[in-house]
Amino acid sequence: MVSKNQIKLITSLQQKKYRKIHQLFIAEGKKVILELLEAGFKLEFLFVTEENIFPKTYHPELISEQELKKITALTTPNNCLAVFKTQINQNHTESELILALDTIRDPGNMGTIIRLCDWFGITTLVCSEETVDSYNPKVVQATMGSLARVNLIYTNLHAYLSETNLPIYGTFMDGKSIYETQLPQKGIIVMGNEANGISKEVEDIITERIAIPRFGNLQLTESLNVATATAIILSEFKRR
Amino acid sequence: MVSKNQIKLITSLQQKKYRKIHQLFIAEGKKVILELLEAGFKLEFLFVTEENIFPKTYHPELISEQELKKITALTTPNNCLAVFKTQINQNHTESELILALDTIRDPGNMGTIIRLCDWFGITTLVCSEETVDSYNPKVVQATMGSLARVNLIYTNLHAYLSETNLPIYGTFMDGKSIYETQLPQKGIIVMGNEANGISKEVEDIITERIAIPRFGNLQLTESLNVATATAIILSEFKRR
Repeated sequence: MVSKNQIKLITSLQQKKYRKIHQLFIAEGKKVILELLEAGFKLEFLFVTEENIFPKTYHPELISEQELKKITALTTPNNCLAVFKTQINQNHTESELILALDTIRDPGNMGTIIRLCDWFGITTLVCSEETVDSYNPKVVQATMGSLARVNLIYTNLHAYLSETNLPIYGTFMDGKSIYETQLPQKGIIVMGNEANGISKEVEDIITERIAIPRFGNLQLTESLNVATATAIILSEFKRR
Repeated sequence: MVSKNQIKLITSLQQKKYRKIHQLFIAEGKKVILELLEAGFKLEFLFVTEENIFPKTYHPELISEQELKKITALTTPNNCLAVFKTQINQNHTESELILALDTIRDPGNMGTIIRLCDWFGITTLVCSEETVDSYNPKVVQATMGSLARVNLIYTNLHAYLSETNLPIYGTFMDGKSIYETQLPQKGIIVMGNEANGISKEVEDIITERIAIPRFGNLQLTESLNVATATAIILSEFKRR
């Protein structure tokens, strides 16, 4: 049974403001919840509409499908919903390669980029304050357990980049081919917004302008999706 | 004004069956429609809720927002909707590198993969019959004009692969690192389904097992999204 207060609390967690106040976030679906549990996130509530989805040690509470509909953030709810405590990643060692996001807005892209960081061993992901919140339910759905292994820092990106001595890489149409550039093991890679790319303010402090060469007969207006561009660039930095 | 028959026809195009029968598909939003026009797709209808979105040469028909709601495939409709004729790409020269999809289901992934083919100059994309239809409204939305420049073939993938003399590459956990493999200019790359990877039947005729190495401290169950994996593999094949 879900109490009225729980419904009020859980639905409020769809908004960033209340996730910050309560330091809680929602995850739905067996796979995501199991990965977050394995990754060490602390459980606040665990609701299920069927028995035996999770081991009894997690104390799942059986609720009706109608009750689940009242608390889900999905249009097609699963058979389970968990509320976890947000956490500040304990891993404070900065990775040698740092990824920085200049206002990524799409939760799907954000989730994919966090998974890519995890895959390529990038433990530090610096985000502009306008970048979509990593505890947004759609981002959680797309990142899976990677959320626990990547250290996310939301900050004034321009100020952050102004203080570093590391080379700062940014992707531009007129940049030098990544296949012909000597890419270092230590540096910061900036990826820009879906519609507008890297902001003018941040562009001014980029030290290395790079580009992913195209081979097709494309129109000038076309570009790669930011998540696939990130995949190609991280692969190119990490390959030896 | 949209007639009753037009409403019936256009809404039917949300289903693959009727797209095949009528050889028509829907595109929404100024950017997508303009790119399809530039790419040479033939217009059947063009509806707009505001004047001056498109040049008069395209004969846009002014309709109300209420009428647009009756024909849109989107939950949040744009200010324009076009119906185009489907076309078989005239470019029959097979690209040296061919991408094959073993049942990609997600329209967003499909759209991203078609754009990647366009970027990397892959003109032939072979799809298993169970792969999501390239004229699905969500795929059209994600591919933009790339749809006109990539030759899509829906066929029995196993039969297609059985007849080729080209090397057939597939990604597997136990494959050889793409960074340490000599990748040819000519060959077929197979990408597998989102949940199940490459099917057993197709796996049996893969000649080269490759892998994208991971650098992070991942759980064994984790994998890259198929669109980002495709991005990394195509980049690695095309770089010299």
